[in-house]
Amino acid sequence: MPSIKVAILGFGTVGEGVYRILQEKREEIKISTGFTVDVVSILVKDKAKERLPITGANYTDDIQDILGNPEIDVVFEAIVGEEPAYTYLSDAIEKGCHIITANKKMFAKHGPALLKHAEFRDVKVGFEATTAGGVPIIRTVSNLLIGDRIKRIQGILNGTSNFILTKMRDEGFSFKSALSLAQQSGYAEADPADDVNGTDAFRKLMILSTLAFGRQPDWEDVPVVGIDHLESADSNDASKVDLRYRHVADIWEDEKGKLQATVGPVLIGADHPLFNIDGVDNAVIVDTEYLGSLTLVGPGAGMYPTGSAMIADLLHIIRQHEAVLVPN
Amino acid sequence: MPSIKVAILGFGTVGEGVYRILQEKREEIKISTGFTVDVVSILVKDKAKERLPITGANYTDDIQDILGNPEIDVVFEAIVGEEPAYTYLSDAIEKGCHIITANKKMFAKHGPALLKHAEFRDVKVGFEATTAGGVPIIRTVSNLLIGDRIKRIQGILNGTSNFILTKMRDEGFSFKSALSLAQQSGYAEADPADDVNGTDAFRKLMILSTLAFGRQPDWEDVPVVGIDHLESADSNDASKVDLRYRHVADIWEDEKGKLQATVGPVLIGADHPLFNIDGVDNAVIVDTEYLGSLTLVGPGAGMYPTGSAMIADLLHIIRQHEAVLVPN
Repeated sequence: MPSIKVAILGFGTVGEGVYRILQEKREEIKISTGFTVDVVSILVKDKAKERLPITGANYTDDIQDILGNPEIDVVFEAIVGEEPAYTYLSDAIEKGCHIITANKKMFAKHGPALLKHAEFRDVKVGFEATTAGGVPIIRTVSNLLIGDRIKRIQGILNGTSNFILTKMRDEGFSFKSALSLAQQSGYAEADPADDVNGTDAFRKLMILSTLAFGRQPDWEDVPVVGIDHLESADSNDASKVDLRYRHVADIWEDEKGKLQATVGPVLIGADHPLFNIDGVDNAVIVDTEYLGSLTLVGPGAGMYPTGSAMIADLLHIIRQHEAVLVPN
Repeated sequence: MPSIKVAILGFGTVGEGVYRILQEKREEIKISTGFTVDVVSILVKDKAKERLPITGANYTDDIQDILGNPEIDVVFEAIVGEEPAYTYLSDAIEKGCHIITANKKMFAKHGPALLKHAEFRDVKVGFEATTAGGVPIIRTVSNLLIGDRIKRIQGILNGTSNFILTKMRDEGFSFKSALSLAQQSGYAEADPADDVNGTDAFRKLMILSTLAFGRQPDWEDVPVVGIDHLESADSNDASKVDLRYRHVADIWEDEKGKLQATVGPVLIGADHPLFNIDGVDNAVIVDTEYLGSLTLVGPGAGMYPTGSAMIADLLHIIRQHEAVLVPN
């Protein structure tokens, strides 16, 4: 049975989710693809920390253990922040590895360069997990692009903001107490600034822009507003007239073919497809030339949804590149 | 430039949509796949009827012009009804052609046999257009099955019924006058019985069952109820307590691993993901082991949505089977 060797960079919630699913689904993956998938190395910051016991793999704190290992076919990256993630993935591509990332901050900025580099080296880049968590928006847009044309994408791309807006409306929470609850529930980062000021949704929108339109607007031209100035009084006033605040990221091609984008709170009515999206769900509406309008709704985050998005990327790479992977 | 030769069986709305998109997207398909796609034959009932002028292809009323042509790689089928569609497609598979169908009535019943036959002959079967029109539910479920497990699928699978229910609720139409309007608007068949008595939604549910669970429940065990006994008074009563009737097809594996399914009108509240699905839209909710719950909403029918679903199937076949197709 041929084997695919993988490394995981980062072993937080997402990295551990990838590892667990690969173990749990080992037999099924073997049957459906004809390959065993073996995790050989896991990059961690602190090797001394007590962790999940793993069999057949090693924890390492030295990236060279991974980049210098010619056996490795695929690198999963679940680190936070631009660097060193970008450098590690560039180096992995250069070595001929396929890469699969969940790092939206890094990928919003460096995605275009990584995609170009990967094309040149004839390896694949999986980035489903960077955007809208478990909602398979990257795969769906990729598929729609075959034989159709994307005109506009709008969506609720930050589950934390949506959770806060839901609590403010449904239960009269202040912004501050809803944010605390999100943090206690594990939905918000220790530093939630990027979630609530719109930056996180903006990054995901830029990733979708690269995919759907092959380019991004100038970042400075995009107005980015968060939900951090909304008060529960605003939310109440909206409810009185049957409207709801949603934090919406929106990008479209104008008549001149120029990309226009906005990110911010929007008041919407009951007929709008985003009206009913509550809690930590994400939702994306894609308008195309032939299909019309397609809406996807699902969990915006979580160990298993994000991990399973990365495994789906792996399995697509296996299917597309069987010939490339066989030599191992 | 290598060429893929295709035939189209049936030239109603859907067949013509396929032809038009293939012409309009000819250059783009060439660039993205490296293949030109040439329609060589179109099967029609009546050759004498005046039709769209076509270049490079011939109208024929003899299926042997297509089955006997060894050049043809892919057969699109957009006929209505079980036969002769099933026989034609079986014969096409036997000749080594990939097939792409929009025929839900035929595929609900004969899909399992066609899929097995195609596997044996190492050709592909595209059936995205059989279920939920432009909503890419077949592709999405196929992708989810790689590395995840489907637990339940429920959805609004008949756009005509949903249009009628919307008109009854929103504008106080009687069932009969809403149905007439659907027919005038081109949303219902000349014989709308299968749409409004639940049969059409049932068939699509069985297609999803084959895909998601690898099997179907016994057809006789599935209660199938339509919307044809609902009165506008029922709809009004529901609205008074903020509920709405939706025609929902539902299938799930019970604790014993047995498939359970129901098709019929259901009263749902404002928090339900199907509450806001109005008009001719279709919606499908897929519950999985890892991802959680994913909802897709989009146009349930139409020349371009259905045609573009079939073109997407073609382009996936081209990508997966490049080696098989190259010899032409």
